[in-house]
Amino acid sequence: VRPITILSDYGLADEFAGVVHGVIARLAPEARIIDLSHGVPRQDVQAGALMLLRALPFTPPGVHLAIVDPEVGARRRAVALRCAEEDRLLVGPDNGLLMEAAERFGGVVEAVEISSSPWRLEPVSATFHGRDLFAAVAARLAAGEPLAEAGEPMDPADLRRLTLPRPEALPGGGLLVHALHVDAYGNVQLDARHDDSRSAGLELGAALRIAGQRARFVRTFADGERGELLLYEDAAQMLAVAVNAGDAARLLGLRSGDEVRITPA
Amino acid sequence: VRPITILSDYGLADEFAGVVHGVIARLAPEARIIDLSHGVPRQDVQAGALMLLRALPFTPPGVHLAIVDPEVGARRRAVALRCAEEDRLLVGPDNGLLMEAAERFGGVVEAVEISSSPWRLEPVSATFHGRDLFAAVAARLAAGEPLAEAGEPMDPADLRRLTLPRPEALPGGGLLVHALHVDAYGNVQLDARHDDSRSAGLELGAALRIAGQRARFVRTFADGERGELLLYEDAAQMLAVAVNAGDAARLLGLRSGDEVRITPA
Amino acid sequence: VRPITILSDYGLADEFAGVVHGVIARLAPEARIIDLSHGVPRQDVQAGALMLLRALPFTPPGVHLAIVDPEVGARRRAVALRCAEEDRLLVGPDNGLLMEAAERFGGVVEAVEISSSPWRLEPVSATFHGRDLFAAVAARLAAGEPLAEAGEPMDPADLRRLTLPRPEALPGGGLLVHALHVDAYGNVQLDARHDDSRSAGLELGAALRIAGQRARFVRTFADGERGELLLYEDAAQMLAVAVNAGDAARLLGLRSGDEVRITPA
Repeated sequence: VRPITILSDYGLADEFAGVVHGVIARLAPEARIIDLSHGVPRQDVQAGALMLLRALPFTPPGVHLAIVDPEVGARRRAVALRCAEEDRLLVGPDNGLLMEAAERFGGVVEAVEISSSPWRLEPVSATFHGRDLFAAVAARLAAGEPLAEAGEPMDPADLRRLTLPRPEALPGGGLLVHALHVDAYGNVQLDARHDDSRSAGLELGAALRIAGQRARFVRTFADGERGELLLYEDAAQMLAVAVNAGDAARLLGLRSGDEVRITPA
Repeated sequence: VRPITILSDYGLADEFAGVVHGVIARLAPEARIIDLSHGVPRQDVQAGALMLLRALPFTPPGVHLAIVDPEVGARRRAVALRCAEEDRLLVGPDNGLLMEAAERFGGVVEAVEISSSPWRLEPVSATFHGRDLFAAVAARLAAGEPLAEAGEPMDPADLRRLTLPRPEALPGGGLLVHALHVDAYGNVQLDARHDDSRSAGLELGAALRIAGQRARFVRTFADGERGELLLYEDAAQMLAVAVNAGDAARLLGLRSGDEVRITPA
Repeated sequence: VRPITILSDYGLADEFAGVVHGVIARLAPEARIIDLSHGVPRQDVQAGALMLLRALPFTPPGVHLAIVDPEVGARRRAVALRCAEEDRLLVGPDNGLLMEAAERFGGVVEAVEISSSPWRLEPVSATFHGRDLFAAVAARLAAGEPLAEAGEPMDPADLRRLTLPRPEALPGGGLLVHALHVDAYGNVQLDARHDDSRSAGLELGAALRIAGQRARFVRTFADGERGELLLYEDAAQMLAVAVNAGDAARLLGLRSGDEVRITPA
């Protein structure tokens, strides 16, 4: 029996996540379930895709269910995928949510369209595919049933992919980056890595301007002084902005998707 | 060993739900625990009863613990119940919280008053019966001890029931309904079903007015245009109001319990 | 295999708590995990320490992981501790977070500094020790590996401790107390017990002033009338302030850490 991880934008106020657990427990009573988070910002597919990418390398191989599905009930496909590495199976809507994580594990080697899966719970509701379709398919896969029987085979090349922002070098030096994610501490993950900052001539220890404010490029935010604005490499090996003992997103008024200019001071 | 589901209004900011897990893990280490939700609106017994009703048909049979208990420490009874169907056991306060779910499983065939249960944790606090009473009783039942030993037998006819609102046909056509539940997406579940709308002359595809606003009666909210106000059947087979890619509760200023008029346009 | 409990200030919006589960599930697939709460107020070490103290007596003995770590990446030690009683192991930062719970179980009899633990996940990030250090150490201990192999031995006397507030008798009668914790219902736990109130001449049933407002000292908040301000003993056997069917913290404008005067009316 494989473990199942779940990521969704259901939140925890409603019973949605609990019902997904219930469906899995009926169909695969032995499967361990790990909630990665149900706190993806509502219907934000990109945020969910990046959260899945950050989390999966630290989970056991198994079935990875992800549900951020603004087009539920419309024409979007539902899919189950096998990655090239580590026998990881991904289940969710075909809207790009699964694809960053899939690339991390060598890409998709087998794809199945599951909208009419023989494993679905009838009657399939128009709005709660997490319960009626995705949970049921994830549970059967966890219990060891073959992926090919989950639905109709499809060409992995037809899967939808996200277009993620990319950092750009600024003409006068520095980087134009984007806020990928604001965590609950107010730390802001950017779409850049150490390689990008090095190429743009930004060195560890340097004084910077971030969105116009004085800042410093440090190894960890604990290296800064209380209240200081800092650029550092976060736990996902992405560059991030923080305020020591403070909230960088609030200080800079940043939300995920926003552009940020980082320049030498 | 039976699985245990938990529903409560404890929220997740405090350690209350974790402590309930702890008590169960001490008394029934093998029992699987499924959190349905700890996000029932504070002390809203009706909201909890409806959430339990929506969730339980999708969970495995077992012990179903529910705690929304504004009268804790006062005179209300605490009870453990056996349903007629599927060997489902319900544990919680006798304030109506358990009874909608009980009806769904054929009604109550055995009821036990557990306020002085021999299984309670001494000293029983005046405020945290979830820990000292309900979790302990649920754990023992999950471990296979007989319901009759949980406390004193009582007549199921004496259990308290909720009076739920019912939709009414409006004289000029249409329905007067009530908002039962607002989910985290802002979708509003109503106390009406397709049968009610048909009786009131409202047909799928029809143009409507909901709380005075132009709306349409569709199969699923994905059938509407972006921003359109919609009436549809939700995943619990209840009629519901949504805005495609929006928040219907906010648009209409609706909270659970509010009256809503649905009329032909 | 020992069970593992987790307490943190990670919240549930991000994937942090899920990733900690993932790391444990990889290293100790058989270990049961109990989330006590991830809702400790951000970086509030005292609040976390008190939450751990309230919860642990109700959990099975095992490994107790706690992460509220404002100094992560700075010089603070990371530790794993064995308590004198019940074979309880505590894992977390050496900032006082673990010590109230440790005292509850007879104090620390073995302490190990784990910052350079051979069990850590390389590369250890500067910011997510919950993932790279604490979860890995907790998992190995749960799987039965010896505490002494988790890192370098240290003297338990060198562990950092919190200085908690203490109630003071007021010259004219009554008590000066402190708000330790505001729960999600708005009930305010104080740093006083029945012994303190008795010493200060406050008797059960008495009319009081709390922060200047008329109040009553009752056995349980259900003994008060609707809307009445009440002093009572809470489920952790601490004195607490509540409003029957209301929110005492909001009424009195209290936050954790605030001083509160309780005097005879």
